[in-house]
Amino acid sequence: MIVLSAIKRVPESIKKHIQHTFKEADFLWCHGIEEAEQHLNKAEIFITYGEDLNDALIDKAKHLKWIMVLSAGMDRMPFEAIGERDILVTNVRGIHAQPMAEYALSMILQVARNAKVLYQREKEHAWDRSVPMAELSGSNMVLLGTGAIAQETARLAKAFNMKTIGVSRSGKSKSYFDETCTVEEMHTVLPEADYVVAALPSTPETSYLLTKDHFALMPARSVFLNMGRGDLVESSVILEAVQQEEISHAVLDVFEQEPLPKDHPFWKEEKVTITSHLSGISPQYVPRAFEVFERNMNAYLNNGEMENIIDTKRGY
Amino acid sequence: MIVLSAIKRVPESIKKHIQHTFKEADFLWCHGIEEAEQHLNKAEIFITYGEDLNDALIDKAKHLKWIMVLSAGMDRMPFEAIGERDILVTNVRGIHAQPMAEYALSMILQVARNAKVLYQREKEHAWDRSVPMAELSGSNMVLLGTGAIAQETARLAKAFNMKTIGVSRSGKSKSYFDETCTVEEMHTVLPEADYVVAALPSTPETSYLLTKDHFALMPARSVFLNMGRGDLVESSVILEAVQQEEISHAVLDVFEQEPLPKDHPFWKEEKVTITSHLSGISPQYVPRAFEVFERNMNAYLNNGEMENIIDTKRGY
Repeated sequence: MIVLSAIKRVPESIKKHIQHTFKEADFLWCHGIEEAEQHLNKAEIFITYGEDLNDALIDKAKHLKWIMVLSAGMDRMPFEAIGERDILVTNVRGIHAQPMAEYALSMILQVARNAKVLYQREKEHAWDRSVPMAELSGSNMVLLGTGAIAQETARLAKAFNMKTIGVSRSGKSKSYFDETCTVEEMHTVLPEADYVVAALPSTPETSYLLTKDHFALMPARSVFLNMGRGDLVESSVILEAVQQEEISHAVLDVFEQEPLPKDHPFWKEEKVTITSHLSGISPQYVPRAFEVFERNMNAYLNNGEMENIIDTKRGY
Repeated sequence: MIVLSAIKRVPESIKKHIQHTFKEADFLWCHGIEEAEQHLNKAEIFITYGEDLNDALIDKAKHLKWIMVLSAGMDRMPFEAIGERDILVTNVRGIHAQPMAEYALSMILQVARNAKVLYQREKEHAWDRSVPMAELSGSNMVLLGTGAIAQETARLAKAFNMKTIGVSRSGKSKSYFDETCTVEEMHTVLPEADYVVAALPSTPETSYLLTKDHFALMPARSVFLNMGRGDLVESSVILEAVQQEEISHAVLDVFEQEPLPKDHPFWKEEKVTITSHLSGISPQYVPRAFEVFERNMNAYLNNGEMENIIDTKRGY
């Protein structure tokens, strides 16, 4: 059985561990699809970030039975060709949860504790004990989304003695949320939000889900953070909400257009904090992704239950 | 019964609540000791930050039975005169725990996620996804101290899936510490520290407890944070450790000399982050302090058990 990997720079320690764990398989470690392409016709299993496949390559991969995608985004997968051949697809949905939850807490702590002003004081060599400090403890976080990322964020928020309110399509209650409600009921919870944290994927339903009216409902003290997808809300709506002091601050990791253009007004707005779509970046990413592969490979070999199986018709 | 307060700017809502709760007492709310002094001879209970008393004032306070200090620092209290008269002293030890623990997590998240570099990129309007990001999850925190502040910090660290190791005089095990050891055993735990967080009070035993040798034991990747007292370690020792890359970063909220002099080399060192002794500052401070007063007042009136009673001989 040939397992082909197109993942670049897999640490030697991981390769060794995987090979040692699955002695029955031959692993071919390639540096990207350019190198992997020549072996596709022999591979039964293909490990990829999911951005390098197309119909022609699927056609070439005569013996392919399982594609392990080491990513959560599936928009570039040629699902039609894959579905016709009944090739199994799994991904690593959920492994962004930990770094993204740490990002969210890190950023709201920075805003609450006025980190930008403190850095400025440090640069000025100025001792200043009058910079206002807020506490997370006792404040409310409204999370848009109740999936793995939102849930891990809610878990941390609860450790900080915050109240957590989750907004989802179903409104079903979930662990680490004190309350949950449906998208239609969102207007009832926004007025009590100190922090509104968006961790929604990009789907037709979430596209431009947030409008001017939602921001008008948030308290003037509230902080909006978006680490989901940039098309959740128009840039101009966020900018207006901040400039008209409908909210006190926006922390944005995702944007309608990425990279964010150099002349975008967000860059100049002091009450907007920008990070470059890095909330999910972590040195633990590749090790965790291969842990999912390892569990799935075990299941694959032993007819067990594999995790994160993708419905090739729906694409998620 | 007259209860005299010298606390400035007590919110009206708190005054009302306290008066309403204890109808049997007459409360005199004064703006500092200058205003309070004239009433001291009538007061049975005195509420103070503990920095405004002296032997002469204690002498004046003929009917005084209890001093409620809304602070944790007791170094300016005239304990001899107080002890001779058998006046009860209580303080609000422990109420700094929440903001200080949030400070600690906020600062180590900032260092782990390279917040200073990210702010610089934002100022340059530069999209940059190559800034290295670390995760707290899976890393080790060594806490110097296992008191209320260290314990609350350890609780939050554990929520971030960190391992917590407490160092104290007794080495006794305590909640939220995976391990504890004595000060004498500290050298055995420092080599595995990703974060060394000092939350020790200033006592003869902790004064200059940390030396060059301790920093030599910390890993080059480690971050040192001091939010206890500035005399835990000489400034020059920290500076050398950072400059010689024995540690990767120092976060300092307390200093041998405060305010930190404008020409101190710390200000210029990029790997030293300075805050102006503000880790304990919180808008919740006064409300929480009066909650302690309220519980103690209930106990005082009903011969119950009061909390945080100070031994006037030892001074803590």
